[in-house]
Amino acid sequence: MNISHIEHLGIAVRSIADSLPYYEKILGLKCYNIEEVTDQKVKTAFFKVGQTKIELLEPTSEESTIAKFIEKRGEGIHHIAFAVPDVAQALVETEANGVQLIDKVPRKGAEGLNIAFLHPKSTKGVLTELCCN
Amino acid sequence: MNISHIEHLGIAVRSIADSLPYYEKILGLKCYNIEEVTDQKVKTAFFKVGQTKIELLEPTSEESTIAKFIEKRGEGIHHIAFAVPDVAQALVETEANGVQLIDKVPRKGAEGLNIAFLHPKSTKGVLTELCCN
Repeated sequence: MNISHIEHLGIAVRSIADSLPYYEKILGLKCYNIEEVTDQKVKTAFFKVGQTKIELLEPTSEESTIAKFIEKRGEGIHHIAFAVPDVAQALVETEANGVQLIDKVPRKGAEGLNIAFLHPKSTKGVLTELCCN
Repeated sequence: MNISHIEHLGIAVRSIADSLPYYEKILGLKCYNIEEVTDQKVKTAFFKVGQTKIELLEPTSEESTIAKFIEKRGEGIHHIAFAVPDVAQALVETEANGVQLIDKVPRKGAEGLNIAFLHPKSTKGVLTELCCN
């Protein structure tokens, strides 16, 4: 796989509104976008830190995987997303290497990216996303 | 605070040797350094991904905080480290803003960096390190 950089880190929070003061006033980052991803049942807030974005994920339903994550583990880092040139091609290579996929084909994520998740059972416990423009 | 980029992500693993094939053969990253940090009771392995390093953390003792993390939550992302120009100055500002510190003054971490940790109780559940050269 040809990873250029960490595109973003997904961080599960109970409330974006309650988290903004920490990210903006204490860390000094600037939230440049808040959007809802309806099919994932989350609201997202984005900050840029060098090459990488921080994506806060607030559940909008108790059925959201983010709500379940927070219930089980509390707020915290949820996933890492690597930028690759072609997600579909990366999935073919990855599956051929024996990695279990959550998404067999790319789908649309926040910010219009093509995304796919690998299963943490195959990635040493780290929920891993591949993405490209 | 003036954060330039994410310096590294710390990922807790049971065994660096068992994790290397995933990071090197599947993700295509190159491990450029393995070192032991005796006072933290961990062995570390480093990979570069764009601006950011991935630091695998393997406990070398059951008393290691990494061993306790894995016992409680399994393998996974342990902490995020932000690069700042001056850790000591950042700690003063951060504490003045009401953030609970784990390290009141910087100490030496892997790769000779000056580092300090903020308490996840004050950082929306994310164990957060500040570091500089």
